[in-house]
Amino acid sequence: MKINVFFTPLSVDELFFPGKTTVVIDVLRASSTIVSALQNGAREVVPVSSVEFAVKVSGGMFGGQTLLGGERNTKKIEGFALGNSPLEYTKEIVDGKTIVLYTTNGTRAVVKAKFSENLFVCSFLNLSAVASHLVNLNNNVEILCSGKANNFSMEDTICAGKLVAELQKLNENIEITDSARASLALNKSFGKSIVKMLSESEHGKVLIENNFEEDIKFCGKLNSSDIIPFYTSNVIKVMPISNSIINPDK
Amino acid sequence: MKINVFFTPLSVDELFFPGKTTVVIDVLRASSTIVSALQNGAREVVPVSSVEFAVKVSGGMFGGQTLLGGERNTKKIEGFALGNSPLEYTKEIVDGKTIVLYTTNGTRAVVKAKFSENLFVCSFLNLSAVASHLVNLNNNVEILCSGKANNFSMEDTICAGKLVAELQKLNENIEITDSARASLALNKSFGKSIVKMLSESEHGKVLIENNFEEDIKFCGKLNSSDIIPFYTSNVIKVMPISNSIINPDK
Repeated sequence: MKINVFFTPLSVDELFFPGKTTVVIDVLRASSTIVSALQNGAREVVPVSSVEFAVKVSGGMFGGQTLLGGERNTKKIEGFALGNSPLEYTKEIVDGKTIVLYTTNGTRAVVKAKFSENLFVCSFLNLSAVASHLVNLNNNVEILCSGKANNFSMEDTICAGKLVAELQKLNENIEITDSARASLALNKSFGKSIVKMLSESEHGKVLIENNFEEDIKFCGKLNSSDIIPFYTSNVIKVMPISNSIINPDK
Repeated sequence: MKINVFFTPLSVDELFFPGKTTVVIDVLRASSTIVSALQNGAREVVPVSSVEFAVKVSGGMFGGQTLLGGERNTKKIEGFALGNSPLEYTKEIVDGKTIVLYTTNGTRAVVKAKFSENLFVCSFLNLSAVASHLVNLNNNVEILCSGKANNFSMEDTICAGKLVAELQKLNENIEITDSARASLALNKSFGKSIVKMLSESEHGKVLIENNFEEDIKFCGKLNSSDIIPFYTSNVIKVMPISNSIINPDK
C-alpha cells in the first residue's frame, strides 16, 4: 500500500486518475461541508466546477428537491440558497435534499479526480472513518489536497499528514512518497491543536475576518463523524460502512 | 520583508514576476551546477527551456566559446558536451566559456521567472551568500522551487526552508507565508544532515541508481561558495558582491 500526496490539483492531470483510489481534502470548507450535509441527511451532493453549471444542474435533473450551495472566495454566491459554511447544512434544511455544490477549490478538485476508481472526501471530521475504509480496500492511495488557488494549503496538507499517520497506525506495510513524508512531518509540527493551526493558517485568518470563526471550530472537530462520502455517477453519497469490504482485484 | 515559497513553478504564471525579487532553487542539480560553473570561471550560463532552443542558441550568438550542457530525466542529451553533473563543470572545461544549459526542471523555472526585477539562483552551496544579499536588498522575496515534473521536491523545499531560516537569523522583521512556514518546519525535520536527506529523497535515489552518488555529496556542501548567480539580459552571471547594496526603490 503506497500513499502519495498532491499539494494542489494543478500538479496532476485528469487522466492520471482512472484506476486510482483517491481522497480529496478541502478542510476549509468544502470537504467539511460535504460531510456535514450527508451527516444531516442530504440525499447526495453534486459537486460542480463552475457556477454556471451549478445553476444549470439545479434547474433540471433533480426536480424540486435541490438546493444550490457554495461560495466564490469565501462569499455566498448571489441567488444560491446556501453558502459554504458546514453550519448552514442543518438537518432541517438539507434532510432528503440534493445539494448542488460549487466552491473555489474543493468541488473543482473532486471533479478533476472524477475518473478515479474509488473517490472519497475527507476532512478532520471523518478522518478515522476514511482511514479504516482505505486500509480495508488495501489499494495505493492518492491524497489530493484542494489547495488554495493552485497553491499550497497548510490545513489540507496537515489533514493529509494526519490521514497518513492514521493509515500507518492501521497498517505497518505502508510505503510513502516524499510529499506524504513531508505531510506527516508537518502534521507532527502543526497538527497537535487543529483549531489553533486552522486559526493561524492564511485561509483561517480570512475566514475569521469574515466572521466564520465558528466554522473553524467546527471543521477542527477530529473524528466527530463516521460518514465516508464517496463519488459515484457524478454525485457524492454516503458509503455504507462494512468491515468486510475486500477489493476483489488485490 | 515578506517571504513566500512556491513548491512548483506550475503554481504561478510568468506574469506574476515583473517587479518581484525571486530565488530559483533546483538542488539536484541545476542550481548546484550553475553555481559550480560560475565558481570555476564560466563567463555566463544561458538557461533555456527547450533542447531545440539550446541547440539554436549555442550555434549562433556566442561564437566558438560555447558549451552545451544539460539533461533530460537525469541523462546527458545526445550531442551535448556536458551533462547536468556539477562535477563535470571543472575550471579546465568551463573557464571563460558560455554554457547553454537545459535541464528538466531547473532551467525551465529560471526561464519562467525571467521577468523578475531581481532573479537569483540558490543551492545549498551558496545559501548564506544569497541570504546576505537578499537581506541587503530588503525586498519581499519569492522562492521558486523547481520541483519534480510539476510536483513537490523534498530537497528544493528543504533548501527553501534553510534559506528562510537564514533570512530570519539576519533580519528579525521577516513575515512568512504558510508555504514558507511549512518549508521552515520541514528543514527542521529533515535538514540537519543534508547529504542524508538528499540520499533519501526520491530524486536522490534515482541519481544514486544512475551512479551520481558523488553529485549528492557535492550538492550537500552547505555554504562552500560565495557565488551569487543572477539573471540579467537572458544570461546568468556572477553578482559582484558588495555590502553596501541598497535598493533605491525601497
